[in-house]
Amino acid sequence: MDGYAITHDDLDLEVRWPGGESTRFPWIWMRVNEPGAFDPDTRERLFDLVGVSPDIRPEAVELNGDALVVRWPDSAGESIVPMDWLASRRPGAPIRPDAAAIPPELWDASLAGWLPRHKADGDLGAFLTDLKRYGLALVEGLDEDPEAGPAFGARIGPIQETYFGRVFEVHTRPKPNSLAYTAYALPPHTDLPYFETPPGVQCLHCVRNAATGGASLFVDGFRAAEILREEAPGDFDLLARRPVPFRFSDDAADIRRSRPALTIDREGRLVEVAVSPATADEMQLDADPAETRAYYAAWRRFMAITRRPALTIHTLLETGSMVAFDNRRVLHGRDAFDPSTGERWLRGFYIDWTDIDSRLRCL
Amino acid sequence: MDGYAITHDDLDLEVRWPGGESTRFPWIWMRVNEPGAFDPDTRERLFDLVGVSPDIRPEAVELNGDALVVRWPDSAGESIVPMDWLASRRPGAPIRPDAAAIPPELWDASLAGWLPRHKADGDLGAFLTDLKRYGLALVEGLDEDPEAGPAFGARIGPIQETYFGRVFEVHTRPKPNSLAYTAYALPPHTDLPYFETPPGVQCLHCVRNAATGGASLFVDGFRAAEILREEAPGDFDLLARRPVPFRFSDDAADIRRSRPALTIDREGRLVEVAVSPATADEMQLDADPAETRAYYAAWRRFMAITRRPALTIHTLLETGSMVAFDNRRVLHGRDAFDPSTGERWLRGFYIDWTDIDSRLRCL
Repeated sequence: MDGYAITHDDLDLEVRWPGGESTRFPWIWMRVNEPGAFDPDTRERLFDLVGVSPDIRPEAVELNGDALVVRWPDSAGESIVPMDWLASRRPGAPIRPDAAAIPPELWDASLAGWLPRHKADGDLGAFLTDLKRYGLALVEGLDEDPEAGPAFGARIGPIQETYFGRVFEVHTRPKPNSLAYTAYALPPHTDLPYFETPPGVQCLHCVRNAATGGASLFVDGFRAAEILREEAPGDFDLLARRPVPFRFSDDAADIRRSRPALTIDREGRLVEVAVSPATADEMQLDADPAETRAYYAAWRRFMAITRRPALTIHTLLETGSMVAFDNRRVLHGRDAFDPSTGERWLRGFYIDWTDIDSRLRCL
Repeated sequence: MDGYAITHDDLDLEVRWPGGESTRFPWIWMRVNEPGAFDPDTRERLFDLVGVSPDIRPEAVELNGDALVVRWPDSAGESIVPMDWLASRRPGAPIRPDAAAIPPELWDASLAGWLPRHKADGDLGAFLTDLKRYGLALVEGLDEDPEAGPAFGARIGPIQETYFGRVFEVHTRPKPNSLAYTAYALPPHTDLPYFETPPGVQCLHCVRNAATGGASLFVDGFRAAEILREEAPGDFDLLARRPVPFRFSDDAADIRRSRPALTIDREGRLVEVAVSPATADEMQLDADPAETRAYYAAWRRFMAITRRPALTIHTLLETGSMVAFDNRRVLHGRDAFDPSTGERWLRGFYIDWTDIDSRLRCL
């Protein structure tokens, strides 16, 4: 790089770039962030801002080839700050590209025709990219071994143990503590909305499926919510504003948390959906009954949208396949099945987006 | 209960209570929440709101002793709704008391004189109550066995595995990937702010401590933040508004998340603090350098408050003791130690507030 001009004052370094444009770099920002502020082994910052004056400025600044040599008043001595390091940090230029920043693509029932399918021994990055983009992806060719699902999951990140275990067995069982453990149909829902942070991704490995019925169904909750926003914007706003109390309880646990059915960010973009008619706790009655009625009407309208056949895919999981889905975006459910016709055994577990995003950045 | 009067229309049931006050209970609310809407085994709701009209109203309502008998048009048939069930659901009366709703009590260095200490075989509820109230509590009398800490933790809830393992060993080690694994002093900080949800509670079990130095230090981050709010309200607002990018990276992971240093709720109450100078990633430069300077000045001021001796307790963990603290409220750190003088070995692990709150409700 050539043709830049350096000036500075008590507050900032100013660089005039070859194009004529100029940038002011505050000294305090530079002292905190310059490459030498970090420990080379751990890549963590060793520099302690509290140890210097908030008005810190260098005792000397000097251009040496393509780098600035900055002499600080504190014990750090000199920093070498390459000019291209500064150039890449101009306002507006994102400092780090992010391989995990994959925007969602919404889908409807037509996804059944092109459901993302991946081989268990295939490209992990391609699988995770589909999972991130569509909130849903299938793995095929896993062993019948009950540990094959968790073993695949461990290639992505640690399995998140919950009250329901490190792995939960979706099997009919006597005295179930959740409707999942029955043979009932389950309408589309998200799991564990009563947790402080509901699980990011749920994986369901089909160890065995010989029963009649019991197809899995999936709905893109973001798509359903966007339809609600279009068809009934007032209902959308209501569901984005009013927290719903969710609760799970059995003899050993009483787990509670309130969250809106729809969470949006400051720009109004959907961040997560929470749909769980089975675990929505009683709603506190409003002083004005019209508010209570309006809430239930909005909730019902949204749930009815999530049941539309035009949005729903049904897929019968086969032995050795595993479905993974974004539990805060894609609703899952199942048709009823007849447990007398054969065994249906799914093993489920959860993985955090924290770890999936990290894996996407490191593949 | 006696002396109430029942009327109803298409929308609501109206009850006039003995005191003269009256309440309107919308039919749709009642249909969704009445006791018979739930499965007795799983305690989950079986009733499906989508299956009925949003204008649902009973075909008949009749008072039978101290209960209403409500005949619905859908397949459910009749509901028996006790009048005291309705009475306890009047607007404003909280439906469920919550043993986990323990408000925080803020503290300063004087806590050193009355640090909550509990016996490992003592009252778990008393320990968890202190942990919730002060964000900090000590367990004494654990075995030297490295598994004694996790075994105690498992009595509360599942241990949350992270990239750093189910349990992490705070030991000096060659080629550390975190400053925790060195003998350096660590200024007060919170752990894993680069996670989507940083761990709720951190436990550190002292398996062995024979080194000179290395006292643990703790600061109530809520107290520090309240002092900032008092002394420099503009800085408080800035830290509550501006997200800070946090990042951890090594050869196998690249974990990133932005969050404000201070998170407040709609009423302005503190919800969490995130202080981690070591893992605060480079901050994107503002177009206006005054904004960048203002941010770093505010951050520095807050960090300086967290270092005040008047707020800090130092405690040398002894072999067989374990400290537990709210990782999103209480900052932790340590003095430097001399690894040549003896072994210092802490084992750490994380537990979710989801599980701690559940345990508090079920003890």
